[in-house]
Amino acid sequence: MTSESAHRAIGVAVLGLGNVGSEVVRIIREQAEELEARVGAPLELRGVAVRRIGSDRGIPEELQTTDAESLVGRDDVDIVVEVIGGIELPRKLILSSLNSGKSVVTANKALLADHTGELAEAAEANSVDLYFEAAVAGAIPVIRPLTQSLAGDRVNKVAGIVNGTTNFILSAMDETGADYEETLAEAGRLGYAEADPTADVEGYDAAAKAAILASIAFHTRVTAADVYREGISTITSADLASAKALDCTIKLLSICERIVTPKGKERISARVYPALVPLSHPLASVNGAFNAVVVEAENAGRLMFYGQGAGGAPTASAVMGDLVMAARNKVHGGRGPRESKYAKLKVAPMGDILTRYYVNMEVADKEGVLSAVAAEFAKHGVSISVVRQEGAGAGARLVVVTHVATDAALSETVAALNELEFVTAVTSVLRLEGTEQ
Amino acid sequence: MTSESAHRAIGVAVLGLGNVGSEVVRIIREQAEELEARVGAPLELRGVAVRRIGSDRGIPEELQTTDAESLVGRDDVDIVVEVIGGIELPRKLILSSLNSGKSVVTANKALLADHTGELAEAAEANSVDLYFEAAVAGAIPVIRPLTQSLAGDRVNKVAGIVNGTTNFILSAMDETGADYEETLAEAGRLGYAEADPTADVEGYDAAAKAAILASIAFHTRVTAADVYREGISTITSADLASAKALDCTIKLLSICERIVTPKGKERISARVYPALVPLSHPLASVNGAFNAVVVEAENAGRLMFYGQGAGGAPTASAVMGDLVMAARNKVHGGRGPRESKYAKLKVAPMGDILTRYYVNMEVADKEGVLSAVAAEFAKHGVSISVVRQEGAGAGARLVVVTHVATDAALSETVAALNELEFVTAVTSVLRLEGTEQ
Repeated sequence: MTSESAHRAIGVAVLGLGNVGSEVVRIIREQAEELEARVGAPLELRGVAVRRIGSDRGIPEELQTTDAESLVGRDDVDIVVEVIGGIELPRKLILSSLNSGKSVVTANKALLADHTGELAEAAEANSVDLYFEAAVAGAIPVIRPLTQSLAGDRVNKVAGIVNGTTNFILSAMDETGADYEETLAEAGRLGYAEADPTADVEGYDAAAKAAILASIAFHTRVTAADVYREGISTITSADLASAKALDCTIKLLSICERIVTPKGKERISARVYPALVPLSHPLASVNGAFNAVVVEAENAGRLMFYGQGAGGAPTASAVMGDLVMAARNKVHGGRGPRESKYAKLKVAPMGDILTRYYVNMEVADKEGVLSAVAAEFAKHGVSISVVRQEGAGAGARLVVVTHVATDAALSETVAALNELEFVTAVTSVLRLEGTEQ
Repeated sequence: MTSESAHRAIGVAVLGLGNVGSEVVRIIREQAEELEARVGAPLELRGVAVRRIGSDRGIPEELQTTDAESLVGRDDVDIVVEVIGGIELPRKLILSSLNSGKSVVTANKALLADHTGELAEAAEANSVDLYFEAAVAGAIPVIRPLTQSLAGDRVNKVAGIVNGTTNFILSAMDETGADYEETLAEAGRLGYAEADPTADVEGYDAAAKAAILASIAFHTRVTAADVYREGISTITSADLASAKALDCTIKLLSICERIVTPKGKERISARVYPALVPLSHPLASVNGAFNAVVVEAENAGRLMFYGQGAGGAPTASAVMGDLVMAARNKVHGGRGPRESKYAKLKVAPMGDILTRYYVNMEVADKEGVLSAVAAEFAKHGVSISVVRQEGAGAGARLVVVTHVATDAALSETVAALNELEFVTAVTSVLRLEGTEQ
């Protein structure tokens, strides 16, 4: 099987031996022959940077080191795989790797969301690869289709479920009718939520991924700070019940969109929030810890990519694909696509974004409520699609679904509703995605 | 926008000006600035090979030529896009292009299914690219994910709906209850079936795509002749009704699978046939002219890719992605992945393949039928999962769904059933996919 490869071995350093790192190391060692046949040279593991060297780590102690800096500096290391997590340490190690002519594969979305520019420039200056397929949607190929397969098309929208923890929680709430806090606790017990779940449930993880997706979809540098973000911690079982009554479910979406402002300017938007999704939309049936990304392009139309968005082996699959491609480039010459940022599109403020809305409010159970509420929507130019009255007496509620309106107009409407005598409180405002009107 | 590109223009020749070719030409001309920014050099259309030059073709007559051979031989052509169709002419033109140092992008699945080896060797010998993302599943990125994103994983199965015509027909039959001939005629009227629909409805198109998918999934050269093939022309409305009663629908599937024989040998299988698919399976809801491909890999788990599998603009999107990648390689150096055929796995005969079966037979409405039929299955080692009795008297039927058995054992069972006094005729035998038992 190895007869065709006469090239010297490609040295690999792995930084981090957590869920993903240990799977990467396992695959490099177990699949050595197949990987050699694909690369055209053997992949040799030079070392693994760990916090603590131990005989229980599944690899020989002599391959472990706590000195990551020296490991990435070794002359016999050609490619560095970074799966430590965090920001400052991996940033330093990746920059130092790129600057010493090593290609880098990373799954670090938080780092990439803020520092892709700096890292891509270092890769460019040193003519090496920087690959990060695993940073978004785990095993699902998304980065490569966007940067390569759709390189001759014009992407108009990317909308995805790219955080497994929140999708698990929302799916479970939808199924069981349980409340958020209870379901979060259950997710923690089952290993789907971390001890500190903030990055997931408040949408920071999904926002980092949205920044990466928007950057490559629109050939524009977008960072996490450009992404509008809301989490799922305010979603109630009542919201899910109301969504169900409207033939919808609720999903945390990362949305990247090319838009044209009322003045005709081309802008982009990147945003993360829980939204009502009609049950007929392909994203509605993506449940549990699964991820999916829908891409709408001018010529390709609507594409969907679906699979496991997290977990050691699935994420390692994406890392290994990048590693094999980087190694092939080391053997055969050539490099993967560079950062593309020529378009330099501006990010639109959230107030300019057009979507539909779901507004849930507690109201007095009196005649004239509906007309007063409807008048307030009309006054702000927000057109109503559906109104549902729920409950009666002290528990009376109005659920309003609007046609598309700007976020600014909706915010003004909600502020005005809260001033109305008839309205006790506006309890939820969620956006509705996946329909056009 | 073009300030960063100092590279000379990349010359492009397009062979064919049908549905796909005219879209490719339109995009090259309309999106010139964006394409230049992505490639790093302008893409310049040197000429289009047509059968007949005309002022009604949407491009200046001076860009049209009937002499394809001279066009691909021009020194200022760097990349040739082949979208003529057919086999012998494009084969000659592609070989001559590759041998004169031009990269080639083709959507020609029939050609690739039989001649990838020869073409890949010419590309290799001349250090140029041969890309064919558009040959399978139109706009849906499938080739690139399999060859690059999953390059570090081990693909065990690829199962897809990759022919839009047959999927349109089967979806319509399922929805309307109409028969095959009637629905085919309707598909022809709506432009979903060609005047001679043989290549689609008899599974030749799906088999060519299966050969391409199996080759890249298993790093083994597989040609159309290696693919077991059955079409959909024998599917009746009664089959679809029986499938529905079993919570299934019927889809024409292209299946590529890595299998282990009873003797422990690793083999591969590539096959195309109409199969019952449980409604809960992701492929069951892929309707109309849409395509979808499910990939099962050892580490990635199950992935699904979904989108438009045919049509001018979607197919052109895939061609353009390849064209931009080939052009980037011309500008920046480097090449895409080469043909990978190191594994050289043998193709298993159809008789060795394990699947589940659906057998529909006309029977005498007498006592003892069921036990006689069940005995025949048992005698051949085929275990029964479900039996349904349908109709009565002269219209009495038995529908049997089996557990997994080899194709050989099932064929023997069916032959024996046809000899039984109680059995008037076995009217349909279909396989059942998407369940394990």
